[in-house]
Order: sequence, then C-alpha cells, then structure tokens
Amino acid sequence: MVRNLEYPKKAQNTLKRYNNRGTYDLEAIHSIINTTSVLHVSFPPGPDQPFPAILPMIGVMGSFDYPSASLDEPLDCYLHGYVSSRLMRIARDSAEGLPVSLAATKVDGLVLALTPNSHSYNYRSAVLQGYAKPVDTDEEKLYAMELITNKVVANRWENTRVPPDNVEMTSTTILRVKIETGSGKIRQGGPHDEAKDENRDEITEKVWTGVVPVYEAFEAPVPSETNKIKEVPAYLTSYVAETNKGNRDKALNAVNEP
Amino acid sequence: MVRNLEYPKKAQNTLKRYNNRGTYDLEAIHSIINTTSVLHVSFPPGPDQPFPAILPMIGVMGSFDYPSASLDEPLDCYLHGYVSSRLMRIARDSAEGLPVSLAATKVDGLVLALTPNSHSYNYRSAVLQGYAKPVDTDEEKLYAMELITNKVVANRWENTRVPPDNVEMTSTTILRVKIETGSGKIRQGGPHDEAKDENRDEITEKVWTGVVPVYEAFEAPVPSETNKIKEVPAYLTSYVAETNKGNRDKALNAVNEP
Repeated sequence: MVRNLEYPKKAQNTLKRYNNRGTYDLEAIHSIINTTSVLHVSFPPGPDQPFPAILPMIGVMGSFDYPSASLDEPLDCYLHGYVSSRLMRIARDSAEGLPVSLAATKVDGLVLALTPNSHSYNYRSAVLQGYAKPVDTDEEKLYAMELITNKVVANRWENTRVPPDNVEMTSTTILRVKIETGSGKIRQGGPHDEAKDENRDEITEKVWTGVVPVYEAFEAPVPSETNKIKEVPAYLTSYVAETNKGNRDKALNAVNEP
Repeated sequence: MVRNLEYPKKAQNTLKRYNNRGTYDLEAIHSIINTTSVLHVSFPPGPDQPFPAILPMIGVMGSFDYPSASLDEPLDCYLHGYVSSRLMRIARDSAEGLPVSLAATKVDGLVLALTPNSHSYNYRSAVLQGYAKPVDTDEEKLYAMELITNKVVANRWENTRVPPDNVEMTSTTILRVKIETGSGKIRQGGPHDEAKDENRDEITEKVWTGVVPVYEAFEAPVPSETNKIKEVPAYLTSYVAETNKGNRDKALNAVNEP
C-alpha cells in the first residue's frame, strides 16, 4: 500500500498563493469532504449561459469496488441532491460524464490581527474535480445511499426502515464522480502581524488580537410530533456528543500553530 | 420604496424542484449571504479546461453609491480572497466583467425520518449570479474593506489600526459583483414521512424521528501570544454572545414549520 498518496498537480489544481497552506494529500482532502454537511457542486454553463451552475449537495467519499478502502486511498465521490434534467442528460449521455468541481470549506476560527489586512480565518477547504455519471445499478445505489445516510448520522441507516422499496430506488438519483484532481488548504494558528505594527505601543495597547474558535454544534435532538420512541436512542446521543466534542476540539486545536 | 423586491426569474435561476421552498426575495437571499462566513465562488472553465474554477471567498452585500441601502434593496456583492491572475485579467479587461456564481448554504438541522429517502436537512441556501470587476478607486475599496472586516466581527474595523497604508491598499484586491439574478431555498420543520410507513407499528416503534438542531458556535476568544489588552473588549464579547444566541435560536426555531 502506497502511503501519503497525493493528487497529481495539474494546471487547474496547483495552488499558487499561500502554498505552504496547501495540501494534495488524499486523506486530508477526503476528510474535509466527509465532515462537511453540504458541498457546493459547480457545472459548466449551459448553452447561451455565461454563469456556471452551482448547487448545494450532500457528498461522501467511497469505493463500490473496494468498500474497505480507507480515506487515504483513491475514492469516488457520491453525490445526492437535485440535478436538473439537462445536467442529468449530459452526465448520462456523454462518454466521460459531466465535468464538475466540488468545494467544501470548514471555518475553525476568526483570526483577529492588529490591522484588517492581516485578519484571516482558520479553515480547512477542499476542492475536487472530476466527471459525474449517474449510478445505474441497484447494488451500487444501495451502497451509496447507506454511505450518505450514515454520513448525516453514524449508524442511522440500520436504524431506519430499510431497504428502500422499488419506488424509492427509482426516484433516487445518485451521481458518482470519478476524481481527476484535488487540492486542499488548511490554515491554523494565531494572527501574523507585521513588525511595523507590532513595534508601535499606541497600536498594540489599543487592539485586541487573538482567535475566536468556531465550530458546528449540535443541540439535543427534538422528537417529531409523530415520534413514538420515548428515549433518544444511544447511537444518536453518542453521535451528537462525539461530533460536538470532535468539532470543538478541532477549533480549539487550530488556535495553535501546527 | 418598493417592498419585497424580488430577483427576476430567468432560465438559470428558476427553481424547479420543491419550489414551495424557493424564494426570490432580496432580503432573504442577501441575509443568507451576509451571515455565511465563506461563499463558494465559481467561474467558467479556463481554456482547454472542462472544469469550472471554484474558490472559497469572503463576501458581503453592499452599495457604494447608496451606503444606507438596506438588505431588501438592490445591492452588489463585494468579494475578498485570492483570485488567479488569469481570472483577474478577464474581470478587468472584459467590458461586462467575469461571470461568476456565488453559493452560500447554512445547515440548521438534521431531519431524521422513518426512511432514509425522507431524511433531509433544515437549511437556508442562496445562489447569486453576476459580473465581477475589480474595485479600482481607493474610496470604494475602503468602503468594501470596512464592510468585509465588520462582517467577520461587528465593529472590528474601528477597533483595529486603520486606515490601511498605501502598500496595504495596493495589495488588496476586492471584486464587486453586479448581480443579475438570484434565488434562495429555505427548508424548515420536522420530517415528512409517508402514510405507508407511518401506519405501520413495527416501523414507528423502532425508528426515532425528529430534528437535531445545528448551528455555528463561537467559543470564548483566545488571546494571541503578543496581545497586550488584558480583558476581551466589550464589542467582541457581545458579538460572540449575540451571534451564538442568534444562530442557536435560528436552529431551534427551524425545528417548527414556518
């Protein structure tokens, strides 16, 4: 097994700025995608259209051929969400599929410096580019549906009414993106001010500098009106607690330089 | 003043699915953009490139000509972040500017239903499309820099070393996007299951249904190593407290149908 596999650097994914923050590491990039609730998926403009299409979708990395593959190995991205019939037709009918760019960004902190220009975010961002095709076998669709459901809440799939019936299978569209290239950017640490400001007392005695850690928090689950289960199930309470702890720790750890 | 101004419905922004969730209301869409830390900005593919470019950027709605304009009025979107020299050249040299699509999505809850197919997020998402040009006067650049800084933390600008010096002014690039069209989608409420599942005790007695509220939380500010201000300033503690309360309330309110 090759370790620390990296995406190839091509013209469109080679980071030019702050490239000490850049990464091509598969595991780092795939982790960002898998822990982001919503990806933004961009497609080329349609006929007579100057603007690219862009949509929020749920996405998760996986391999139908090698389900045991881990995050540091080559994976596809499975996407779920509404795709217009025009885009679906292109995805289905073209040999390679529909070219798409996926973006995921997590903010870990507000970095407050002496001057507005040195302000920043602590963040983790990832972009993947590849060709999207609709999944056409029921086996692969089921594999992807389970992966997507368990991305939202770990172990949720087996705690719902499964398998989906025929109508549900037919009405669900999943896109599989074969990844061509990818890149990530990670910024951690406190503010970096310039000596011209740091050496002036009238500035440093006036401006507070530091980091406000930011993370995605879950509140206690609220039962629906028709829910009949009295206690929130253990898999859900522990998912909520573990995700909160994990997200909060990431934000607090990002305050320090790596 | 025209109230409830809406973006025109054109081919590329007319929502086709779940359109009861759709909105074209300027205030609703601009609010989503302004409360989202990072936008994803998509540009058309470059020469010999199938994939659109997509970048995380900070963006905020504003009007240099009518600074007092409120969120329900026509506004530009000011963007800050790294844009490649190729894109910058197109933005500067073409008459209309660079066509861009901006996306912002906030997740307010995990909506857990009896079947995976009925799972959903509570969310607010917005897409804007328009033409980007670099801001070229110092006056407008200053206006936008203040707007962007105060989007990150309210009142931060006046509590830092300002104004930016000449080097800082020259090195900062701000894009102004003239908006052509926009649309938003808002989903609130609990799960919607189908009668075929709701009427079966062996399902409803096994599957917990409801909503896990989700929101972006701020932790207590952590001073930098060089910070000299002993107490966290009031504008910052109150911004942290108010943002936490506002975000949390939004997530909890979204549990109920509008």
